[in-house]
Amino acid sequence: MCVPGCQEVVARRLSRRGLLKGLVGTTAGAAVFAAFPPPRAAHAADVSFTRAVDLTHALGEDFPTFFGKPQLRMERTAEFSKDGFNMYQWHLDEHTGTHLDAPLHFSADGVGADEIPMDQLIVPLVVVDIREKAQADPDHQLSVDDIKAFEAAHGDVPAGGCVAMNSGWAQHVASERYRNADAEGAMHFPGFSKETCLYLMEKGVVGIAVDTLSLDHGASKTFDTHYTWLPSGRWGLECLAGLDEVPATGATLVVGAPKIKGATGGPSRVFALV
Amino acid sequence: MCVPGCQEVVARRLSRRGLLKGLVGTTAGAAVFAAFPPPRAAHAADVSFTRAVDLTHALGEDFPTFFGKPQLRMERTAEFSKDGFNMYQWHLDEHTGTHLDAPLHFSADGVGADEIPMDQLIVPLVVVDIREKAQADPDHQLSVDDIKAFEAAHGDVPAGGCVAMNSGWAQHVASERYRNADAEGAMHFPGFSKETCLYLMEKGVVGIAVDTLSLDHGASKTFDTHYTWLPSGRWGLECLAGLDEVPATGATLVVGAPKIKGATGGPSRVFALV
Repeated sequence: MCVPGCQEVVARRLSRRGLLKGLVGTTAGAAVFAAFPPPRAAHAADVSFTRAVDLTHALGEDFPTFFGKPQLRMERTAEFSKDGFNMYQWHLDEHTGTHLDAPLHFSADGVGADEIPMDQLIVPLVVVDIREKAQADPDHQLSVDDIKAFEAAHGDVPAGGCVAMNSGWAQHVASERYRNADAEGAMHFPGFSKETCLYLMEKGVVGIAVDTLSLDHGASKTFDTHYTWLPSGRWGLECLAGLDEVPATGATLVVGAPKIKGATGGPSRVFALV
Repeated sequence: MCVPGCQEVVARRLSRRGLLKGLVGTTAGAAVFAAFPPPRAAHAADVSFTRAVDLTHALGEDFPTFFGKPQLRMERTAEFSKDGFNMYQWHLDEHTGTHLDAPLHFSADGVGADEIPMDQLIVPLVVVDIREKAQADPDHQLSVDDIKAFEAAHGDVPAGGCVAMNSGWAQHVASERYRNADAEGAMHFPGFSKETCLYLMEKGVVGIAVDTLSLDHGASKTFDTHYTWLPSGRWGLECLAGLDEVPATGATLVVGAPKIKGATGGPSRVFALV
């Protein structure tokens, strides 16, 4: 995802790395990620739950977007009083509302939303609470120290599972605070750091999730988190709701990802089974 | 959903009933449905599962549709080699692929996809196998007798749950047999009968699901099943996959319905937890 002007930054970055020559996922990509095992599904034996939490914001045409412009238009194609039924056609940018980032979003040849194995979409969920830090510093990046503090209190992050960041940002979804753009248009909200991604990859985590508009913190111009996490074959979730209601450990995440061929992600219904 | 020419049929039907005067859900609607309790959620205490079944077809631009014309177009809006990331805009008719029918689809003022209570989207699932009958007669409508035979073998259909029809039609998704249109354009595939809907409403079932393109059987011109089921505040699922792998009873359905404001339904990721 790019702020105005950022596509040029990304293009320069790509050029520097020689990625424009098609080396992503082959030479450069392999060199970066060879040390990490591919994501695996957690074993789902005897999962149980007594309630569910909806982690999905309701998505309307006015939902805040990374680019700052509307990304959904509902075109009415049938009207009950005239046609006997109601229907719309959606004109929808994939990365809108509570949504999935598939590996393909930030890689030349990663898997699309439809190709993520189902057993990587129903996985153990842990929630790392950084609300105090985020309130004090909207540019906070969820750090390796944050993860280690979480692990000291709750045990290891789950191999084959998802690590979600609860920054308290979901409460701002209806206000300007959600994008929190400054006078120059740069946004300020928390995200995962690149180093945290590398740590979680080593742990075998398959997904990361944020309650903000981007896996990277809002002020990022280089999208290190996207470029580290997604090309490794892992997925992300953005704009989650409801994390306050999910315990730190013990929940099971269900990612109702769109099964649309070749999609780079898309609006998803996301539940936590608790 | 209408075959060519059917909108006129529906319009006449609406006119006959006085529905064009806005009586749906008030006078006429209330008269029909007052005898039935509103749908309730099943209690989800101590649900457990060991595996999941994906009940979702992969949706591409060539997925078969009720109207016979493409209902999805993927417009590329970013290309990795040029922009540093991949992205598409979807132009998508709501009722495409494995998808939800919300009450609003066939009522003037029913709830939209975003308004269905979450505890009606994670519910007990039973699967009624009519594969033999459907193979012998593509116009077969899942009947009250079919339900009673199921109940005699497996116990009552679940109040607060979903009843799915397995007609074996999912295997035809890549062939003309899925729509099975005759020379006049009328389609021939199974669906639920109106009488079955009334029976299931009395039992407190909240959702019905089919592995075909419509809750009504394909040859229907009057859409009695849609007009009976959806305006009562219940939902439907169409174009399910994978039902062969789900036991007759004991599974839990997770409907990853789109949480898009005012949507009349839409592509959904659907899982059975077994």
